[in-house]
Amino acid sequence: MDVLPEAPIRRLVVCGVGLIGGSFALALKSAGMVERVVGVGRTQASLERAKTLGVIDEVALDWATALSGADFVLLAMPVGQANAVMAAMAPHLAPGTVVTDAGSTKRDVIEAIYAHLDAHLMHVVPAHPIAGAEKSGADAAFSTLYRGRNVVVTPLPENDPATVARVRAVWAACGASLREMSPQDHDRVFAAVSHLPHLLAFGLVHDLAGRANAEQLFSFAASGFRDFTRIAGSHPEMWRDICMANRHALTAELDQYLGELAYLRALLMSGDGASLETLFGEAREARNRWAEKTFPS
Amino acid sequence: MDVLPEAPIRRLVVCGVGLIGGSFALALKSAGMVERVVGVGRTQASLERAKTLGVIDEVALDWATALSGADFVLLAMPVGQANAVMAAMAPHLAPGTVVTDAGSTKRDVIEAIYAHLDAHLMHVVPAHPIAGAEKSGADAAFSTLYRGRNVVVTPLPENDPATVARVRAVWAACGASLREMSPQDHDRVFAAVSHLPHLLAFGLVHDLAGRANAEQLFSFAASGFRDFTRIAGSHPEMWRDICMANRHALTAELDQYLGELAYLRALLMSGDGASLETLFGEAREARNRWAEKTFPS
Repeated sequence: MDVLPEAPIRRLVVCGVGLIGGSFALALKSAGMVERVVGVGRTQASLERAKTLGVIDEVALDWATALSGADFVLLAMPVGQANAVMAAMAPHLAPGTVVTDAGSTKRDVIEAIYAHLDAHLMHVVPAHPIAGAEKSGADAAFSTLYRGRNVVVTPLPENDPATVARVRAVWAACGASLREMSPQDHDRVFAAVSHLPHLLAFGLVHDLAGRANAEQLFSFAASGFRDFTRIAGSHPEMWRDICMANRHALTAELDQYLGELAYLRALLMSGDGASLETLFGEAREARNRWAEKTFPS
Repeated sequence: MDVLPEAPIRRLVVCGVGLIGGSFALALKSAGMVERVVGVGRTQASLERAKTLGVIDEVALDWATALSGADFVLLAMPVGQANAVMAAMAPHLAPGTVVTDAGSTKRDVIEAIYAHLDAHLMHVVPAHPIAGAEKSGADAAFSTLYRGRNVVVTPLPENDPATVARVRAVWAACGASLREMSPQDHDRVFAAVSHLPHLLAFGLVHDLAGRANAEQLFSFAASGFRDFTRIAGSHPEMWRDICMANRHALTAELDQYLGELAYLRALLMSGDGASLETLFGEAREARNRWAEKTFPS
């Protein structure tokens, strides 16, 4: 790292030009923080589309071309591809090129980093932007996606502090607020507040959609159902990878929640309305306190 | 019933002047469909507040006063009060006064109707407006709450068809779309698409709020969590009553959902990413198809 943390990126490589990678590119372009954006990915058609949309400037068909002269790489493909992608890029990665990722899980990505990028550990800084939308793909990307959102950086012990500062500065240029925590804490926290709710929403819609009277049920579902299930519109492959990568923490969270549901079921069966009301009241208060603080209107 | 279904109400009595009852009054006022609105309720302060806000024109401290000259009554208090309210109003209810309700459950309300208003069955038409918001109280009421929303009418065999037409016309004047179904079907359908999601959202927030690291967890929760838990901001007493009144159908739905979660858990434990992705994909498709049809942007 011989550049200022806030200096513009000369050649940015984005692997996986979807909502996350595409919005990162657009945010940096809009901040004047990047000169040229190169897209890499599985399907040439999506990359050409991203180029047509102006999200990237150049389509690279192989890692050698993409990484030639690159000073910054964002890995934004589904986390299930981390091993394959890192194995493919490793031989072409120049010493000193900064690499970060946008994966929603961190321990599995870090395992892949140690497995494939062990010669580059000083400059590979894992991160996770807390942002998303139910739409996916480069068409859904927009330059302000990260404005005011948290980006969690989970640095490796081997990271060069200057590279960590560089990665933080680049995310800050996207408008994000930087947070830092251990990969273990990260994966536990997001199992609880993100991965479990996604699993629950996917599960409810799948449950109802499989009923004989599914059409009738959906015809009476209203705005509460719409909001509760919004995250069931999320990308199936991305969420398969997240759930698989973080399945130990996720299963632990699910089990704790199953305990909560067993308690609620007991209150229903025993007709204990008073305890139910207390529980609802506590939940309401906690939820509203959080929402008012986090999303001031 | 000797009035045209679309004729204005002369004296409307609203029992429970909160979001639902208050918005009903405001909608009818704005449609020129009511001359005078009288509020009845448990706490005089809330009624006085509703009067100050212009939601009601008159505060009644007893049922005799309220019902004197009334031609239309909306019961919009939490369903747990149905028995007490109907017992109190019955002695003062004139023959021919139309009564409807806005309860989110129907079988329990209908039991209360048979128990207390058996002399008035021709003119007591149960209904349920499918509308709500996380805010409650008369301050949250607004005249367009019912615009484009479904109102489910579950007529009794004893109902006068002219009274059913009257109730439908009044809700239509609020901007609602009318649907009709049996109370049994109603309670099963709403256990699935409304009561269960509320229970799940309350449960998740309560679960997380009770953790030692609750503050850390909430500090990383984002917009997906916000939408998933919006309904956990709902009124605790109202939802206690709904869950208690409909607890048999709700427990059946919860059990079916627990089966779904057990299946998801098995997929996680066995690392069956392919099945998980298929399930997520089916859920996403069903959810997006429904949302695009129901909430066209």
